Amino acid sequence: MRAVESREVRHLVGRLNRGDRLPRDLLAVAEKFGVKAGRVHAIGGVTTLAVTEFDVEAQTYREPLRRAGMTEVLGLAGNLSRRDGALFGHLHISACYEENGATKMLAGHLVEAEVFVCEFHIVAYDDVELIREFDPSTGLALWNLPDKE
Amino acid sequence: MRAVESREVRHLVGRLNRGDRLPRDLLAVAEKFGVKAGRVHAIGGVTTLAVTEFDVEAQTYREPLRRAGMTEVLGLAGNLSRRDGALFGHLHISACYEENGATKMLAGHLVEAEVFVCEFHIVAYDDVELIREFDPSTGLALWNLPDKE
Amino acid sequence: MRAVESREVRHLVGRLNRGDRLPRDLLAVAEKFGVKAGRVHAIGGVTTLAVTEFDVEAQTYREPLRRAGMTEVLGLAGNLSRRDGALFGHLHISACYEENGATKMLAGHLVEAEVFVCEFHIVAYDDVELIREFDPSTGLALWNLPDKE
Repeated sequence: MRAVESREVRHLVGRLNRGDRLPRDLLAVAEKFGVKAGRVHAIGGVTTLAVTEFDVEAQTYREPLRRAGMTEVLGLAGNLSRRDGALFGHLHISACYEENGATKMLAGHLVEAEVFVCEFHIVAYDDVELIREFDPSTGLALWNLPDKE
Repeated sequence: MRAVESREVRHLVGRLNRGDRLPRDLLAVAEKFGVKAGRVHAIGGVTTLAVTEFDVEAQTYREPLRRAGMTEVLGLAGNLSRRDGALFGHLHISACYEENGATKMLAGHLVEAEVFVCEFHIVAYDDVELIREFDPSTGLALWNLPDKE
Repeated sequence: MRAVESREVRHLVGRLNRGDRLPRDLLAVAEKFGVKAGRVHAIGGVTTLAVTEFDVEAQTYREPLRRAGMTEVLGLAGNLSRRDGALFGHLHISACYEENGATKMLAGHLVEAEVFVCEFHIVAYDDVELIREFDPSTGLALWNLPDKE
């Protein structure tokens, strides 16, 4: 268990413009407001989408699944922290479109997307430092928080 | 990029009753607590559900997909703001049920649902005004926030 | 409608370790920080997962669907409250993996999972008491909040 409590929190709300890129332009919002750590949740729709998943054995992300065409974003969720000195968004996306009268999903770790509409909320943790460092147990860059167990 | 910071935030938590209607009765909670803008997240289950998706070319929502029968709500997520002078909920729903030993999804823009159980959280932004106006780039009613790019 | 407003809120952020168990080790974090009521959202990945859904007629949860192997967690969402004198997590999980070049979902009410990575946010409501009691209208243990309708 590795956790910290944030007591200085700011709440941002807004939207991206049609044609904006994810995650780039969401990170630009966070940068503009001086966010160093936080959480993100958004809904909306995208006109292109690429998602991936982590391959545990290869310790790398797989070749993305891609789709062009309007796709509803049920949830774009994750967090903001620092990696290699820059603001980094770890975002998972749950998206869907109708096909043959049923819901078809396209979901996973967000690689990139083009925004149709994106209504977002960011909770900034202004008193918390979340730094990603290589974690040998997973092969991922994870928060270097002290283990409290 | 169009975003604002809210510094006066309230947190509501509660549940709807069996037989309540979504989004109507969730909006009634928000009205009762004087919420003018905010975000919503809920989990639970519904006994009827109708979802849709936006058709970009037709600039309108499609004929809803409907289901009757218990459906688990993985996430009912979105926001509260003003449209045409009234409180408006823009809510996407991610729901599922088991079929032949596998997860079957029904998801999209929430049209309506009948509640079995709905445990919700509302974060009210009391110092922020979010007004939806027609946006010609999408054909949707979007928040009239100034563009900061 | 049964809702309360929390004015004493704390924000926790952190991650679980590889091999930790859900929901057990997430509840352990909450216990360690003295959380009595709150909400939860997390993303990440799990190496085993069991989900279920509520059977309204039988008034019980079904036999779980299970999967072993890396599964992306799009959203682990829900709440913390008291049931039978102990901290209880009501958590729904939306998870996926790639199969034949498409997204395959495994989702529902979380039974248990083994963590690969879990980056979580907890909003603690320190001034709110949420106690689950048997609700005859659903057969579930629901929050005993006064009805304000």
